[in-house]
Amino acid sequence: MEPGQPGGSGPAEPGPLPRGVRGAGPKASASPPSGAEAQLQRCAPAVAAVLPAGGRGERMGVPTPKQFCPILERPLISYTLQALERVCWIKDIVVAVTGENMDAMKDLIQRYQHKRISLVEAGVTRHRSIFNGLKALAEGQRDAQLSRPEVVIIHDAVRPFVEEDILLKVVTAAKEHGAAGAVRPLVSTVISPDADGCLDHSLERARHRASEMPQAFLFDVIYEAYQQCSDYDLEFGTECLQLALKYCHIKAKLVEGSPDLWKVTYKRDLYAAESIIKERISEQIHIVMDTKEDEEHIGHHFEEMLKNELNHVKVTSGSLCHPGRDLQQIILEQCYNFICVNVKTSEFEETQKLLDVLTESNISILYPVVVISVHFLDHKSVPIGQKMENLMQIREFAKEVKKRNILLCGLLIYCPQEKQKLQDSLRRGAIIIATLIKERNSGLIGQLLVA
Amino acid sequence: MEPGQPGGSGPAEPGPLPRGVRGAGPKASASPPSGAEAQLQRCAPAVAAVLPAGGRGERMGVPTPKQFCPILERPLISYTLQALERVCWIKDIVVAVTGENMDAMKDLIQRYQHKRISLVEAGVTRHRSIFNGLKALAEGQRDAQLSRPEVVIIHDAVRPFVEEDILLKVVTAAKEHGAAGAVRPLVSTVISPDADGCLDHSLERARHRASEMPQAFLFDVIYEAYQQCSDYDLEFGTECLQLALKYCHIKAKLVEGSPDLWKVTYKRDLYAAESIIKERISEQIHIVMDTKEDEEHIGHHFEEMLKNELNHVKVTSGSLCHPGRDLQQIILEQCYNFICVNVKTSEFEETQKLLDVLTESNISILYPVVVISVHFLDHKSVPIGQKMENLMQIREFAKEVKKRNILLCGLLIYCPQEKQKLQDSLRRGAIIIATLIKERNSGLIGQLLVA
Repeated sequence: MEPGQPGGSGPAEPGPLPRGVRGAGPKASASPPSGAEAQLQRCAPAVAAVLPAGGRGERMGVPTPKQFCPILERPLISYTLQALERVCWIKDIVVAVTGENMDAMKDLIQRYQHKRISLVEAGVTRHRSIFNGLKALAEGQRDAQLSRPEVVIIHDAVRPFVEEDILLKVVTAAKEHGAAGAVRPLVSTVISPDADGCLDHSLERARHRASEMPQAFLFDVIYEAYQQCSDYDLEFGTECLQLALKYCHIKAKLVEGSPDLWKVTYKRDLYAAESIIKERISEQIHIVMDTKEDEEHIGHHFEEMLKNELNHVKVTSGSLCHPGRDLQQIILEQCYNFICVNVKTSEFEETQKLLDVLTESNISILYPVVVISVHFLDHKSVPIGQKMENLMQIREFAKEVKKRNILLCGLLIYCPQEKQKLQDSLRRGAIIIATLIKERNSGLIGQLLVA
Repeated sequence: MEPGQPGGSGPAEPGPLPRGVRGAGPKASASPPSGAEAQLQRCAPAVAAVLPAGGRGERMGVPTPKQFCPILERPLISYTLQALERVCWIKDIVVAVTGENMDAMKDLIQRYQHKRISLVEAGVTRHRSIFNGLKALAEGQRDAQLSRPEVVIIHDAVRPFVEEDILLKVVTAAKEHGAAGAVRPLVSTVISPDADGCLDHSLERARHRASEMPQAFLFDVIYEAYQQCSDYDLEFGTECLQLALKYCHIKAKLVEGSPDLWKVTYKRDLYAAESIIKERISEQIHIVMDTKEDEEHIGHHFEEMLKNELNHVKVTSGSLCHPGRDLQQIILEQCYNFICVNVKTSEFEETQKLLDVLTESNISILYPVVVISVHFLDHKSVPIGQKMENLMQIREFAKEVKKRNILLCGLLIYCPQEKQKLQDSLRRGAIIIATLIKERNSGLIGQLLVA
């Protein structure tokens, strides 16, 4: 039993239940508490979670175990931990990792500032890893300040998109039934082969379900089941609900889950997870501008264009005048995309201010933040070559802030006199911004794009 | 029954069996014929394929049926058709589409130059759509020149990554057993709920398989099964192997397939498919250079850098001197990434030549082709701003070739005198090229990037 990081493994302060926080996604919505949630709040069982993370990921076809495969340079398991630790009523999160990954896991907890995590050594099978996690909770290790919970959630390290909603449902159902698990409809028909590798029979799809995660159990039930469990089952079994049934005669309640609960299994699942995460952190763009709102300026036209062209994205704007007040709020809302429109001041003054606020905020610890420094070139102004040369210093800024996981690019928008041509320029600018935010690729930092 | 396009729906000329062609991927490998393939070649049954494509894609959460969702701007079903039509021993491909999608499907066949496709009207269920396809083959419609095959493959429109290898295996097994289908290990445990929505029992994972596609049948077997099939089964059934078992007492041979056979079901699967396709068409880069190989030139250093930095990519090079001879070979090998190093000639002369060859070749019909025009800026040369201004005309070229699905960008590499700094410049250039090829995003066309 090893604590994750100093002070990080004790139980969290009891607090109000957060609502509708989305797993591995940045946004918290503000829906009223559901009936089940209110119910849980009343009875408030002590809840812990166990994550077996000792798998070797043979199916992925890559040497790194899949839970440690990077997505936007951060290991997959960190997204799953993030999803669980956002749920403040989960008091302890026990992760079972192999000895060889123990140090990497400790580094990861420190680097991404995960809280309430305790580490135990994984067993050679999934069931043995879970059992190790349960033992640590049962024994309530003094150092780690773990305590025996009333309900324990079991979840996979490779299902990063778990939502508070489904966690609440399985915990509530486990309180009532002793055990509960998320299920999904089958995507393929399940068939049973005979000894010759031919079809013996196929199962009726509607009568069966795929058993997914999370699952939850009364702690005493699942701990008893593991203590009774035969060596054969510990070695070859995979299904915790089955153990509760076999050894404690508890029929688990099955709870329909969302498609997002799927398990990252193959390389294609990593691609899918990366795309989903990129999409989620691209839902809001904040524009910083050093003009007044009522002032007629090209920057405002550009803001309008962004709102029109990126109509699935929430576009907000503000200035840096009140020393960063608006911006602090935006950062708290977990916006990961910033556009700095430099109009009045010389070249990069405004962008530099924005970068200072962002680097101080730690917002880029979990996700790379895209910052685009926008500049306008008036048709009466200096030759475009001269202007571009001036703006090339963005390369140095970009190199510097890359160390803080901020991806900085420049965008020079040429402003012709003719209205239609100007609109075309602004539209091209909006498309370039959408592209840079969508791809979030560090290979393009420091570039000056022209619209 | 409607023919897909004039002359496109007749049986293909019999020819030698292609080997190891990869579904929805561009490359053909040159492995020797397997035992099964040699066997098939000897007995050479007439083979056709039926694709039910009448689904409405409710699970995707988008209004477009999933088989018509675009990947790199091309509908998913076109990738699946491409995978099947590459297999020259499949003589007819019958696609069942709903009346409302019939015209879109005809346009798609024309636009992407699909061959050997016939269209039939889809039924209201999957089984009814397949039955319609089988009827068209059985009746051997005169117009469409369809003929009753000995073996019929049934495949899904939403499984684009089917390989010739597995098609061959199921066809060979169907010849022997009457029916055969691809299977995969279960990813999740399958459970059976009781009437109260609680766990009744869980199935032993190792004793069951997920039934995937493709499947193959002796035509007489599966046609007989569909003719005997009850209305209930036509309405609520989903598994063709089950029909062969129930109505013709044929136990299908089960063939282990690769993970790539998975069915595009959810939005995340579209993301995964797009990433896989992008990865596959990024495996080769061809460099065009107007210098001799033995000549000492910065272009050759850059080529070396590309080979070092992009070590998972095949980097080839050649010149345009022999009027495009090398290049024609590269195009035939289905390379979708070109770098044109402009060294001797003025600005875009070489790039323009390359673009002319590419636009004439039709290579960009199926996939967007990335072309990067590389230019070097000597430290003794004109100011960088001036050079950039000269190169801005790339925007016009890019706009023009975008119409032909060619994504053109410029890359200006600054060449400092100091050797280490030069290496850094070249490395940055290689990273930018890797990024542009990986993302393949039309939002960045016409941009001049600087390394």
